[in-house]
Amino acid sequence: MSPTFSAIDPSTLTLLEGEFETTTPEELATLATAARQAFLPYSRLTGAARARFLDAIAAGLEDEADVITERAMAESGLPEGRIRGEVGRTSNQLRMFARLIESDSWTEPRIDHGDPARSPAPKPDVRSMRRPLGPVAVFGASNFPLAFSVAGGDTAAALAAGCPVIAKAHPSHPGTSKLVADVILEAAHLTGMPHGVFGLVLEAGYEVGQALVRRPEVKAVGFTGSRAAGEALMRLAAARPEPIPVYAEMGSVNPVFVTQGALEARSESLAQGLFGSFTLGVGQFCTNPGVTLVPAGPAGDAFVARLAELTAAADAGVMLNSAVCERYGQGLKELAAVGGREVARGAAAHGGAYGSPTLWEADVLAALADPRLLSEVFGPSTLVLRYRTQGELEEFVAAIEGQLTATILGEDHEAIGLAPLAELLAERVGRVIFNQFPTGVEVGPAMVHGGPYPATSDGRSTSVGTHAIERFTRFVAYQNFPEELLPMALH
Amino acid sequence: MSPTFSAIDPSTLTLLEGEFETTTPEELATLATAARQAFLPYSRLTGAARARFLDAIAAGLEDEADVITERAMAESGLPEGRIRGEVGRTSNQLRMFARLIESDSWTEPRIDHGDPARSPAPKPDVRSMRRPLGPVAVFGASNFPLAFSVAGGDTAAALAAGCPVIAKAHPSHPGTSKLVADVILEAAHLTGMPHGVFGLVLEAGYEVGQALVRRPEVKAVGFTGSRAAGEALMRLAAARPEPIPVYAEMGSVNPVFVTQGALEARSESLAQGLFGSFTLGVGQFCTNPGVTLVPAGPAGDAFVARLAELTAAADAGVMLNSAVCERYGQGLKELAAVGGREVARGAAAHGGAYGSPTLWEADVLAALADPRLLSEVFGPSTLVLRYRTQGELEEFVAAIEGQLTATILGEDHEAIGLAPLAELLAERVGRVIFNQFPTGVEVGPAMVHGGPYPATSDGRSTSVGTHAIERFTRFVAYQNFPEELLPMALH
Repeated sequence: MSPTFSAIDPSTLTLLEGEFETTTPEELATLATAARQAFLPYSRLTGAARARFLDAIAAGLEDEADVITERAMAESGLPEGRIRGEVGRTSNQLRMFARLIESDSWTEPRIDHGDPARSPAPKPDVRSMRRPLGPVAVFGASNFPLAFSVAGGDTAAALAAGCPVIAKAHPSHPGTSKLVADVILEAAHLTGMPHGVFGLVLEAGYEVGQALVRRPEVKAVGFTGSRAAGEALMRLAAARPEPIPVYAEMGSVNPVFVTQGALEARSESLAQGLFGSFTLGVGQFCTNPGVTLVPAGPAGDAFVARLAELTAAADAGVMLNSAVCERYGQGLKELAAVGGREVARGAAAHGGAYGSPTLWEADVLAALADPRLLSEVFGPSTLVLRYRTQGELEEFVAAIEGQLTATILGEDHEAIGLAPLAELLAERVGRVIFNQFPTGVEVGPAMVHGGPYPATSDGRSTSVGTHAIERFTRFVAYQNFPEELLPMALH
Repeated sequence: MSPTFSAIDPSTLTLLEGEFETTTPEELATLATAARQAFLPYSRLTGAARARFLDAIAAGLEDEADVITERAMAESGLPEGRIRGEVGRTSNQLRMFARLIESDSWTEPRIDHGDPARSPAPKPDVRSMRRPLGPVAVFGASNFPLAFSVAGGDTAAALAAGCPVIAKAHPSHPGTSKLVADVILEAAHLTGMPHGVFGLVLEAGYEVGQALVRRPEVKAVGFTGSRAAGEALMRLAAARPEPIPVYAEMGSVNPVFVTQGALEARSESLAQGLFGSFTLGVGQFCTNPGVTLVPAGPAGDAFVARLAELTAAADAGVMLNSAVCERYGQGLKELAAVGGREVARGAAAHGGAYGSPTLWEADVLAALADPRLLSEVFGPSTLVLRYRTQGELEEFVAAIEGQLTATILGEDHEAIGLAPLAELLAERVGRVIFNQFPTGVEVGPAMVHGGPYPATSDGRSTSVGTHAIERFTRFVAYQNFPEELLPMALH
């Protein structure tokens, strides 16, 4: 009998009903072996067949939306509208990949015909295309119990590419994870997918997840979470007899640069927009604007004062779990200890895992002198850094670590002058934004949700959008192959 | 005054003229800083401007072909025809990338227009493209003093992508490396490239190369060489405060599968072809067929006997340097120690770093029981493994490590029966070949010269062909950007 655990309602810190058995090493081995055995038949299915599987998962999630939403709300503290939106986003992602793989063009087939008459040596016929890597381990994220969890972006991309998936449920939402896993398994059954194409592992801690990454059958890892946990997975994967790629999205402070011109033109709407962005979802987004660069001087003072008003008037919100809530409080203490000045704080927390919005301030030169001011504080806060010159901004950008996003809030007539800043930012981040806010990641063909280390473990990749399928593939070349032995895409 | 070293002629083991100063830590820091400073201006040049630089290098190599060839022959022991061929290949690679980057399509621009009227949330305008990673460290390979060295494939791909390059000369050919570096620097000067776009470091050992990989300015590493050295670089790069991608091509045994049908149809030509492939360039290719699967029975016996005749009649050849020569001898001893039977050996070695072709045999089941039989022996040898059934072949393929290539020598009428083998192979290698030999890597748009670990450190990438430019890039998204701030490719 394996140990069991229960989920906790973060709004009350009481146990939710339902007991979940921790996956045993034997069960993990069985799942991994089955995933390995499923790989070849699954990867050889036509894209259209895999698309039917993805469509069936999407439909199943919508059919079960009520029960999934109820459980996910209880386990995550997120409101109904947000969870229902996430169900829709998760289904849409699955359908986006389903449409992508209905034709073979996503495999980027290249056919380079031979020339036996070429001198000095005959030219061989060489053809290449993307092929899937093998079984993938996907770690559910605490802050997206659906869209970045069991049936989330990494799972959709991996299944679309032809890789079986073993999902590791986030310990905060085992019930949601189980419901979603059941939808996937039912969809696999309905559409005749090979046994082992999907599996779920459950635990309250970290050991099963670590064992999963060590399994030789696993050929890639997708993860969204903290830097500490992501780096632990990177070390584990690098120390395997066969190292494997780890796509760990580890968050960032997503700097926002506010220009003097923007403040002069529309300070109030920018303050409301920024406040809305850094408190959205109780600040629990990896694209949360954790650092905001604001000009010194009266216009900047007024902007910060307005942000402070909005912050002070705001309510506390339920956070995802008590650990996230405690880390938020700890992060704020550390911010104060390294010279951040608290400017405003919203209403005090209630009984459960509640977090209050906070606003902080420091000088940009202080952040350059002590980069600890730029550590991510996961929660509803932003640190305003005051700057005097564009030179200070550019010095700041040259010094910061890799980021998921950077945002410029400026006027169109300032654009030419902002070009050097924009170019520097494009080199440090996965996505640069002009006059919109970083929260809310559009799912589409051009999106890049990634960025240089330590925003992610592998800045060459994205976890959102159709490019995400590429992370679970590699190119394979076929030289002088008879047509009967070539994949259809290369005929 | 830094220590100096000289190159050694492997055919005589005597010192060649010319003394080379080991790059000091201060010089390395200067080169790295200059590369970092060159990065932004260089990466912002048009593709056409960078293409002129690549074309100028290609032309410069051809202009200096005589002096480069003479020196490279002396330092590598390779014959004139081979070196002249490599000069041509190196220039062709540079020109291939020059043509590739003259249009922006290589950056895979994607434009996803916004829709302010979309409900429930407006759709943002999102555009993305490939951008270069930053300065790249390129390690020269011993076995390709030109095509995989200072101006070789990785340098061409990195410069094409917009990345400055610091090349680490292989200790065996500092003179060739210096000549080629001078061509690159002159081409940079002629075409007005930013100072720091290229640098060369020299040393007799490993310390400067390790320091280069640790430099914070370096954002990716390209390497071709031994597994031990490649894995050392992987560990170094993973242990940096900012881990960076390492593309280490570490070789493999490139299994060749000979069918019964092929032996019955054309045993003599296959024996000559295989013998030619495993002894080409004194066996010093990463695609050398180090393991050959041959059916048990009389046809296989005759094939092996013919290979033995060819091997016994062959001369020894000059190897690249004394270390390569010693490792070849050591590798053969280890093969014997783990149960390989020596079947034939060519003429004995002369005075210098000479290696004799050798032919070895074992049973495929022995290799399954002791994978040490499948260790790469870098040099002119192949180990024949005798098999009885296609089931044994498939079991063998399931057990082997990742490989650069795998080759099937079979008849067209056998193709359907070979499909399971071909599919299994495609999952273990970067390139599968039918009825041609693995040596000789075509440079073109469809080539994949890579493969799962341990053939390379990163099986998602290729070091040959136009796809190679991708390894030095990542996608960046631009959201809601005014046209004046967008890169031209995204207008």
